[in-house]
Amino acid sequence: MGGLRTLPWYVAGSQVLGVACVVITGVWMGHYRGGYAWDGSAQEFNVHPLCMVLGLVFLYGDAVLVYRVFRNETKRSMKILHALLHMMALIISIVGLVAVFDFHSSAKISHMYSLHSWCGMLTFVLFFIQWLLGLGFFLFPWVSAQLRSWYLPLHVFFGLLLLTMSVGSCLLGITEKLLFSIMETYSRFTGEGVLANTLGLLLVCFGVMVGYVVTREDFRRPPNPEEAALSVHFKTLSEGEIPSSP
Amino acid sequence: MGGLRTLPWYVAGSQVLGVACVVITGVWMGHYRGGYAWDGSAQEFNVHPLCMVLGLVFLYGDAVLVYRVFRNETKRSMKILHALLHMMALIISIVGLVAVFDFHSSAKISHMYSLHSWCGMLTFVLFFIQWLLGLGFFLFPWVSAQLRSWYLPLHVFFGLLLLTMSVGSCLLGITEKLLFSIMETYSRFTGEGVLANTLGLLLVCFGVMVGYVVTREDFRRPPNPEEAALSVHFKTLSEGEIPSSP
Repeated sequence: MGGLRTLPWYVAGSQVLGVACVVITGVWMGHYRGGYAWDGSAQEFNVHPLCMVLGLVFLYGDAVLVYRVFRNETKRSMKILHALLHMMALIISIVGLVAVFDFHSSAKISHMYSLHSWCGMLTFVLFFIQWLLGLGFFLFPWVSAQLRSWYLPLHVFFGLLLLTMSVGSCLLGITEKLLFSIMETYSRFTGEGVLANTLGLLLVCFGVMVGYVVTREDFRRPPNPEEAALSVHFKTLSEGEIPSSP
Repeated sequence: MGGLRTLPWYVAGSQVLGVACVVITGVWMGHYRGGYAWDGSAQEFNVHPLCMVLGLVFLYGDAVLVYRVFRNETKRSMKILHALLHMMALIISIVGLVAVFDFHSSAKISHMYSLHSWCGMLTFVLFFIQWLLGLGFFLFPWVSAQLRSWYLPLHVFFGLLLLTMSVGSCLLGITEKLLFSIMETYSRFTGEGVLANTLGLLLVCFGVMVGYVVTREDFRRPPNPEEAALSVHFKTLSEGEIPSSP
């Protein structure tokens, strides 16, 4: 368990990366793409990247980290914080989606034709379903303990998968936006292109950092004593006799 | 361990998805983009997507699956097969990289300016390093058992991360290629756009299937009896007395 002392550094690193991603997206849209508005113009589009990076990447990632950061709180308060952060992520990403649909409608651009939109929408829909299932399975006692323990590994797997798909969709969006806006100058390593590429790499780093923290074995929450005894008991039952030490 | 009976279905599903990805890439480049050549032309570029999907996604994914598919072979033959499949992936992806660099040079296009190229090259370089480290740590006895057991979880984490980055880089490449080739018609849901978007989703599905199979707890290889006894022994040592059953 010696590695546990390094956990705060990884968490701090993830927060620096996450804030950097949000700030760089804000600067890209604010400085290079003409700022923000809510009038169907290209400035309304600019709300979209900012909301998606803030909601579906940064807040989503932090919701995932909750179980590793607050290690000694009760499981229930962790679940509530996890659900609340995800709810904020959900609301902010809905604002981001409305912005882009609004902009497309005003500019008479087809909806949902690009790979970015397919991946992004799939991610959003699965995230919404996963959030509802999470509420019903873990926060409110609507299902049996057996069903809960069947769903838990799936919830964890899809949780990380959706963070990955979120980051991937952002990268697709960055590439689309750059090719629509600066196709002529992108290959000359202009400031905007390099900034947006750097944003892409930082988003990957944020995802990797969160993924590493939550999958690393010795960063796991210690089970409470009751759970630990139960798990050892089941282990004994399922493995038969414990061989005596040599 | 009841879930183990479903493993062959997941593996079969992954293979269907993997073959479909390679075939669709081949059809996209062969039918819609004018076929293949090795003369610095756009037809030479077409070799690039095919090699990357075949090498860095399909063969890479299959190399990862080896440990779940051949469950009763010796660990050493598994390691050799794992390393060989990765070597094939490496060689084929080098051909794919040469194709795109050659094309860019002939067409006087800058190298390495896009987010796709940054992510793709990062993935390739990390994959090459990981392959060399894998050889040195696990296949040849060049390091201590202690170092090996320190590196193993990192090797596993980076292995899945690089598969994810590979798939992500392919999706960025698909978006770039579509916007360079059919920007005018992409939003009208033309055949080529829909085919390429579908390829993107199938690549994601392949990655998800491989990721699910290798992370699912009850799909793990059973440890050999010697290892199992040792692990239980260590468990006993580190957890103190096993509580007696009620």
